[in-house]
Amino acid sequence: MEFKVNSKEFERLLTKIIPAVPSRTPMQILENFLIEIKDGQLTVFATDLEISLKSSLNIVADSNASFVVPAKLLYDVVRSLGETTLNIKVEEKGKLQLTTDSGEYSLSYLDSSDFPEIPSFPGDTVDQEDLKEISINGEELNTAFLYTSFAMSKEEMRPAMMGTLFEFIEEGLRFVATDGHRLVNMLNTNIKHEITEQYIIPERAISVLHKVLDEKDVKIYLSKSHVSFVLSDIELITRLIGQRYPDYKTVIPMENEFLLHVKTKDLHNAVKRMMLFSTSNTRRVKFSIDGDNLEISAEDLDIGASGKESIHCTYEGDPLTIGFNSAYVNDILSHIRAEEIILKLHSPTKAVIVEPKDNKDNLDLMMLLMPVRLNN
Amino acid sequence: MEFKVNSKEFERLLTKIIPAVPSRTPMQILENFLIEIKDGQLTVFATDLEISLKSSLNIVADSNASFVVPAKLLYDVVRSLGETTLNIKVEEKGKLQLTTDSGEYSLSYLDSSDFPEIPSFPGDTVDQEDLKEISINGEELNTAFLYTSFAMSKEEMRPAMMGTLFEFIEEGLRFVATDGHRLVNMLNTNIKHEITEQYIIPERAISVLHKVLDEKDVKIYLSKSHVSFVLSDIELITRLIGQRYPDYKTVIPMENEFLLHVKTKDLHNAVKRMMLFSTSNTRRVKFSIDGDNLEISAEDLDIGASGKESIHCTYEGDPLTIGFNSAYVNDILSHIRAEEIILKLHSPTKAVIVEPKDNKDNLDLMMLLMPVRLNN
Repeated sequence: MEFKVNSKEFERLLTKIIPAVPSRTPMQILENFLIEIKDGQLTVFATDLEISLKSSLNIVADSNASFVVPAKLLYDVVRSLGETTLNIKVEEKGKLQLTTDSGEYSLSYLDSSDFPEIPSFPGDTVDQEDLKEISINGEELNTAFLYTSFAMSKEEMRPAMMGTLFEFIEEGLRFVATDGHRLVNMLNTNIKHEITEQYIIPERAISVLHKVLDEKDVKIYLSKSHVSFVLSDIELITRLIGQRYPDYKTVIPMENEFLLHVKTKDLHNAVKRMMLFSTSNTRRVKFSIDGDNLEISAEDLDIGASGKESIHCTYEGDPLTIGFNSAYVNDILSHIRAEEIILKLHSPTKAVIVEPKDNKDNLDLMMLLMPVRLNN
Repeated sequence: MEFKVNSKEFERLLTKIIPAVPSRTPMQILENFLIEIKDGQLTVFATDLEISLKSSLNIVADSNASFVVPAKLLYDVVRSLGETTLNIKVEEKGKLQLTTDSGEYSLSYLDSSDFPEIPSFPGDTVDQEDLKEISINGEELNTAFLYTSFAMSKEEMRPAMMGTLFEFIEEGLRFVATDGHRLVNMLNTNIKHEITEQYIIPERAISVLHKVLDEKDVKIYLSKSHVSFVLSDIELITRLIGQRYPDYKTVIPMENEFLLHVKTKDLHNAVKRMMLFSTSNTRRVKFSIDGDNLEISAEDLDIGASGKESIHCTYEGDPLTIGFNSAYVNDILSHIRAEEIILKLHSPTKAVIVEPKDNKDNLDLMMLLMPVRLNN
């Protein structure tokens, strides 16, 4: 069978799907695209067994076919072409023949039955019984990812934390991410629904979604085992992390009565400089707060270097000295996107709450940071 | 002693010198800047024992001093500051105290006598007897590096080829670079001189110079062992490669009578696509020339993929099939910067000459490429 496709349209399609192709995998078949041509529609699939991507294009084809081709090679060939009509012929003996005005390219293909099955929504491969549906604006979803995703754990020892919690509650949808050292908790009260469950979306799904989301609405199908995000031109299906999310509420201190107001940029610039002086293994930075003065300091005894800076702040509370991992402070300050922030403190050993001074409409954002011990 | 310096001026100075600081070296002292304050001038030096960089700044200082500080740390601290006045105090016990309006930073320094000696031009540490001087426009020098430097060898087995030959001849200055597989030979007849020697400048000097050269004239001092390039605001000193350059003229074929004219871009685009199909170990691409048709093809038997393209050309010669390493063809086509090129050929086993169709005034450029064997 044979079909024609515009090289640039085909490139755009493959560009959307290639993020799901794993770069290193012991299962070689996953380094391929599954391509299906059915009733004038060309659909490309890829999966790493955790997430799958799928997108389609209308073409003119004389019959149906499906085959599996090396993803990177096909992608590189197609995007190396200028805008042209690409004639693709699925020959017998496993040969795919690509022809343009000036060139001929031959690739090997495998049978599509070798490719792992991809769950479909709503469909027979996914448990339909508890299937929920919701529509969320792509930009709102992206904002949630922007604020929360950096705090997910990278440690395989705690699989539940290697994703972002979607907690559907009466007030809206709460997004939570934590690695045990810091936590982000963002409630969007704009999202209306009738769901009562919670779901843990794995990191890889979040990071791929983050690249493809736009301002359009996203239809989300949630089952017990999988979630499907249906965008206007692409569908991402991910398995859920089938673990219990830790009870994050117990770590949020309720009585941090000392309030520190500071300009985010002032604090961030000082912390970035202190990172140069904080010892590479502890990465510790010290905050000493007294009246309207916040002194930030760090030292690296190994190389005999140290630094300290004073920042103007507004503080209601007892004088306090507290230590943090400077990289985690930097992460929080890089992601909070507020001109002024409030730090809520209690003692050198208790978690600190960081909040924007003014929360945006419908967004209730709270970050939490664990202190580190100071030796002196 | 104590002195003041504008943070941004200091940053610009350090930015110029840091390229000479080796990133990994068994000699830890080389990871430092040597800083000298003498008669109101602050000079920063760095060296990797092959090249040295030096640049100065006028400052207000009450006395002289010299010390050695960790290059990356000082550079990172200075460039992390906004524009401010930096007060630097060289304290006893090896402490350097940096102070701004809001911060204090302390770094350890070492004694300047621990730093390796840097040759000076003209000066007592360099053999003066055969010292030559010449002035070359920075842009002309940069053009020569642009055309030639990619062809230098990376193989330590042939040290002479790990640099670019500066061959002063009656007609001007000839630049030659080769790794045994390809060769670039560029004569600039615009450069007048009375020198008869030849010098091999190491790769690292060329690549650092390439970043700092501008359109101003460069004063060059050449001794038997070292060369100094004096730019308006920075001086680079490099040791020369003290080897005999191979007799490159013997490999240049004189009787390649078959002439192929082709548009550089057409050929380059096709070669880039063929690189996707050429087997990863041989990287071979085949040129089949017959009449006004140049067919380029490649195949990767390991993955069962192949490609071929036809390009329009003008050819005077017998039909010929010849193989090349596609990466080398790509290198040459990336660096030749001409709309149309001429390939001069003779047989499948003889070196091919590649030249721009129109050589620019005062520039005579010739590239040479060795073929690879074809199995069939």
